[in-house]
Amino acid sequence: MLENADKVFYPKSIALIGASTKENTLSRTIFTNLIEGGYKGILYPVNPKAESILGVKCYPSVTSIPDSVDLAIIVIPSNYIPASLEECGKKGIKGIIIISAGFKEVGGEGVVLEKQVVEIIKKYDMALIGPNCLGVINPDSKSSMNAAFGKFMPKPGNIAFITQSGALGTAILDYAKGLNIGFSKFVSMGNKAGLKEMDLLKYLKDDPVTKVIIMYVEDMSNPREFLKVASEINDDVNNMKPIVAMKSGRTAEGAKAASSHTGALAGSDEMYEALFNQCGVIRANTVEELLDVSLAFAHMPIPRGNRVCIVTNAGGPGIMTTDAAIKFGLQLAKLDPATITELRKKLPPTSNFNNPIDVIGDAQHDRYEWALEHIMKDKNVDCVIVLLTPQSVTDVEEIATSVVKCVKGTKIPVLACFMGIVDVSKGIDILKENNIPVYRFPEEAAMTMSVMYKYGQNVFAPKTEVIQFKADKAAALKVIEKAKKDGRKYLPELESLEVFNAYGFPTLKSFLCPTSEEAAKRANEIGYPVVMKIVSPDIIHKIDVKGVKVGLESELEVKGAYAEMMQNVKILKPEAKIWGVNIQQCAKRGEEVIVGAKRDDSFGPLIMFGLGGSFVEVMKDVSFSIAPVRLSMAQKMIRSVKTYKILEGVRGKPACDTDAIADCICRLSQLMMECEDIAEVDMNPIIVHAKGQGCKLADARIILK
Amino acid sequence: MLENADKVFYPKSIALIGASTKENTLSRTIFTNLIEGGYKGILYPVNPKAESILGVKCYPSVTSIPDSVDLAIIVIPSNYIPASLEECGKKGIKGIIIISAGFKEVGGEGVVLEKQVVEIIKKYDMALIGPNCLGVINPDSKSSMNAAFGKFMPKPGNIAFITQSGALGTAILDYAKGLNIGFSKFVSMGNKAGLKEMDLLKYLKDDPVTKVIIMYVEDMSNPREFLKVASEINDDVNNMKPIVAMKSGRTAEGAKAASSHTGALAGSDEMYEALFNQCGVIRANTVEELLDVSLAFAHMPIPRGNRVCIVTNAGGPGIMTTDAAIKFGLQLAKLDPATITELRKKLPPTSNFNNPIDVIGDAQHDRYEWALEHIMKDKNVDCVIVLLTPQSVTDVEEIATSVVKCVKGTKIPVLACFMGIVDVSKGIDILKENNIPVYRFPEEAAMTMSVMYKYGQNVFAPKTEVIQFKADKAAALKVIEKAKKDGRKYLPELESLEVFNAYGFPTLKSFLCPTSEEAAKRANEIGYPVVMKIVSPDIIHKIDVKGVKVGLESELEVKGAYAEMMQNVKILKPEAKIWGVNIQQCAKRGEEVIVGAKRDDSFGPLIMFGLGGSFVEVMKDVSFSIAPVRLSMAQKMIRSVKTYKILEGVRGKPACDTDAIADCICRLSQLMMECEDIAEVDMNPIIVHAKGQGCKLADARIILK
Repeated sequence: MLENADKVFYPKSIALIGASTKENTLSRTIFTNLIEGGYKGILYPVNPKAESILGVKCYPSVTSIPDSVDLAIIVIPSNYIPASLEECGKKGIKGIIIISAGFKEVGGEGVVLEKQVVEIIKKYDMALIGPNCLGVINPDSKSSMNAAFGKFMPKPGNIAFITQSGALGTAILDYAKGLNIGFSKFVSMGNKAGLKEMDLLKYLKDDPVTKVIIMYVEDMSNPREFLKVASEINDDVNNMKPIVAMKSGRTAEGAKAASSHTGALAGSDEMYEALFNQCGVIRANTVEELLDVSLAFAHMPIPRGNRVCIVTNAGGPGIMTTDAAIKFGLQLAKLDPATITELRKKLPPTSNFNNPIDVIGDAQHDRYEWALEHIMKDKNVDCVIVLLTPQSVTDVEEIATSVVKCVKGTKIPVLACFMGIVDVSKGIDILKENNIPVYRFPEEAAMTMSVMYKYGQNVFAPKTEVIQFKADKAAALKVIEKAKKDGRKYLPELESLEVFNAYGFPTLKSFLCPTSEEAAKRANEIGYPVVMKIVSPDIIHKIDVKGVKVGLESELEVKGAYAEMMQNVKILKPEAKIWGVNIQQCAKRGEEVIVGAKRDDSFGPLIMFGLGGSFVEVMKDVSFSIAPVRLSMAQKMIRSVKTYKILEGVRGKPACDTDAIADCICRLSQLMMECEDIAEVDMNPIIVHAKGQGCKLADARIILK
Repeated sequence: MLENADKVFYPKSIALIGASTKENTLSRTIFTNLIEGGYKGILYPVNPKAESILGVKCYPSVTSIPDSVDLAIIVIPSNYIPASLEECGKKGIKGIIIISAGFKEVGGEGVVLEKQVVEIIKKYDMALIGPNCLGVINPDSKSSMNAAFGKFMPKPGNIAFITQSGALGTAILDYAKGLNIGFSKFVSMGNKAGLKEMDLLKYLKDDPVTKVIIMYVEDMSNPREFLKVASEINDDVNNMKPIVAMKSGRTAEGAKAASSHTGALAGSDEMYEALFNQCGVIRANTVEELLDVSLAFAHMPIPRGNRVCIVTNAGGPGIMTTDAAIKFGLQLAKLDPATITELRKKLPPTSNFNNPIDVIGDAQHDRYEWALEHIMKDKNVDCVIVLLTPQSVTDVEEIATSVVKCVKGTKIPVLACFMGIVDVSKGIDILKENNIPVYRFPEEAAMTMSVMYKYGQNVFAPKTEVIQFKADKAAALKVIEKAKKDGRKYLPELESLEVFNAYGFPTLKSFLCPTSEEAAKRANEIGYPVVMKIVSPDIIHKIDVKGVKVGLESELEVKGAYAEMMQNVKILKPEAKIWGVNIQQCAKRGEEVIVGAKRDDSFGPLIMFGLGGSFVEVMKDVSFSIAPVRLSMAQKMIRSVKTYKILEGVRGKPACDTDAIADCICRLSQLMMECEDIAEVDMNPIIVHAKGQGCKLADARIILK
């Protein structure tokens, strides 16, 4: 299907099925859009009732077209579409765009129709966009195809835009026109019955005119496949194509609106966040961010570091931009003394020569040019933000021209903000025409620079492979099989421990003791203090039934605790089957962390990390990753929680052994990948000791599917 | 000084001192700005070397002007200014604007000159704006005075703008022109040698044409006075004037840039945050927010609640807006079934009748009008956001006209976002002309609505008075005096306790015991377990010298601990003078919180609240307030930390006695107000019990100035 995507984007000939003689219809709009867009191939309108449309000869059906056809654009009522598709198939048409609505999104018969469409496109190996979409635009001069019913054709550029909302597509095209943003491809995916976001990513990966990919999605057809494709794109540093995605339905309410809108069942937001993080996709929170960031990627190189230099003709905006830059993770570059010496030669003595460089309110283009030229050569500067306020003598257009001159062919990114709307407009136009990203407000420029920096850090960071640990998979599966046979969904602690031992987790010495005597014997063996926990297939929350005793210091205490526990459980959970108690080595003190896993139907196994305690629970300060998890990703998960500093050691405590935690995360990832019957794992807490001293699973449980 | 502010804003006559015959000079720009702006009074250019300027008769000095003069605008070199001011004083001129630079901001002689200026304006009781500023504009048709060297006169409106950065002022005027925002007053404060932000606030409070006050500040001359004035404005619900402030220098780097820029020493950001919070000033984080929010306040009523209804012609943008609205603290309104019945009458059946209301892509103005009309009447709706995407049949201008019609005279706020730039521009213009706030991106509209909602909640919330507790101030002062006499800056725990007892804090029973025997005796008296702590004027961090023992269960343990502690301290801090140990009642278990205070030179005493433990320390999750603290503010401080949920009870724990914490905060506020020698207080931890069961100061210390 994907191999025929070129027929959709670069067709030599197009059949417009349902071409109408009436004005103000969708098909007529598409017809004129194609003609006015300067489409480079041959266009065949298909309409059994018309001889010609706007002077172009009409054909009664696709089969009656004398030549071969690459792409069919279908704009007829949905119930006629399966038959029409069959004809296209027989004609050998491999590219299809279905504009018409009336499919999955209306429910009932529409769902049936969409299934028929899917079957037919599979049968004929067609590349399909839609149904229920705005269409496809390829502004690339090789094709110049405007096969959409938007109001105009965007200018050619290097940004590909994929959208699940046609209406947002029209809005973005309109913003882009105002901002002078050009596109390499525009695809309104509609119901995604054929090509989906991951297929389009695959296609765009090798599209030579696409440099940046932006997308708006409400759900994802196959997140794991998307992860794979997007990772491939991001790992290919020689063919860098940043992907910027906006995924709506972040909040529960938003997700509800999403499902009532497209019938799509949106996955939970944390999973998408993990997905994007993991494959280096930049997530835009707002439409503004989507545009801001893609514009910068389209025209500027990636910064090597986060040292920004700000050039301004006014102090106040310089301070604001500094505030924003620091907030977003940049730092102010310290200029080389040689640069400052140069700057002093032509800037007035009242200038500020410490970053932000203030060329003073009466600056004209010569000062901006001098400052920029020298700053951009400074090896301590990774990126530049140029600010301008329209003061009384400011020669806005000349300054814009100077910026263009300085920035041409730059190896470090330069973003501009000419503050204002009216007085600065001509300067802004000059910048736009010359592909210098220019922002309305200084904070936007700072945010965008920071996103570029973080993207670079991520892309250039060395990535480790997924570790394959030696594990006794068979032993683990045996435990799981037994539980399944018994019809149990929950593995009691000791069974869970067998599984964890099989995968080499650092567990505590532990013995199932069916009697008080056995418990005392094992406690003597392990050495005091010990912990005693109730063992029952029917008890998940042991504390709730007073089924945990810690710090038992002698044989006597062990026996006393045993008797007490049995009595407690009998009262609090009389129906529970009791297998005995677990006598466990006592963990040394340390920081408590949580590592967990959950299997999702579409995302597969997710691994979670967080610090222990109620604070973290309340603040939801956890990080997720989709298995398999590379070691570098596991380390990133640990570093990315807000409470990470605690693991680095606070109040004189030593730094924790985060390598040992990362090891647990990777092992858990492998366990989830290999034992598909496991639904959830909860290792809470893992006690982490000082660097080099490892960690111990103090409590952990496994739930089966 | 302030009583003459009217002479600055509504002068009947102006002397322009330094009026130049040369073009492209500051004074000439001001001259033409006054003339072209249509100034309603009489303008007297003053220049000893010219007969006339642009046909207007010149005077050699202010004294030679035959009539009385209200305002002098001074644009001559700084070293001539004191003499010129003296002349103005003698002439009886009470309003002064000094445009010229060359004062405090250049250091050295400039500082001296500025001091002279301050003395002269005091002597003659003049109202001064500047020096080193862009000037003052009063677009109010009664004055129509453009006494600034910006490029144009803004249109009249109800927003007053005060700025510490002239350049930002020019930028804001330019944004405002593009966005069709009108102003009631515009003041560039410059060095603030005369009227400062708090004086201007006082003036604007009674200015009938001002409805919203926006300000940009880098530092504040007198935060406590500002707090008072801003609180007065916010407490006057019959004369509501929202204040929106942007304070730059948020980050340490930004603050550094601020001090090199204006020579102003910016206070730390947390204090400003507390200040704004406390007096209901809305803090804008970006220029965009400043404009977005003030535009809405200028033209829309305050929402009664946070139930928003979104009307859209496209699903995707509806979802995005929902996401943003929820994120910012709004909730989706649930429409009354009667409203839905009405909507169904004229909207197509495929519309979404659950908020967000989707009138579908082919909607024209009639559907928007129908939907808006009925939604705005629904008693479950507090506010409305109208979205539009420019689809093929969208009649943008007609829809804008319908929105204007529906919103006219509305009692609930309506904000609009017509997505795009080019196709939607004419519709946007219609909205702007009719004062419907319209935003470029949907998330801006959601953010703005949320800010309005929170402002309303704050303004309409009942405010308690500052409680005056019965306290033994004399006893407290006695302890403090004694320490001062001894030259001690640090009150050991037992002395601190005396002070806390004098102010009625819930302290634990505690006795200073100079000997082991005394310790044992007191422990028996209090009842076990007890805590033992070293008492020394030289030891602040007792744990560092192993000077704390908890959970002592018997006389024997007390005696043993005493011996051990003395030995530890001798080794770890041999030079410390030891007064004995403190034997203290053991606090029952509970949540640990921190309450503290710090006296700042310009903000006065600040009270801090946070939860205990390293998590909170690492996350800096604390709230501040400036003393005196009202009870309602203390409660707000407690609620506003992110970890507040923990106090509400998690994992089955009962809710904490937050009233008892609020009581401590208020008492500490009073203590700090009454005992001015206290520099810092640290109550860490306070153990809080379940609701109704109070709290106990488990450890606390006082540091003197």
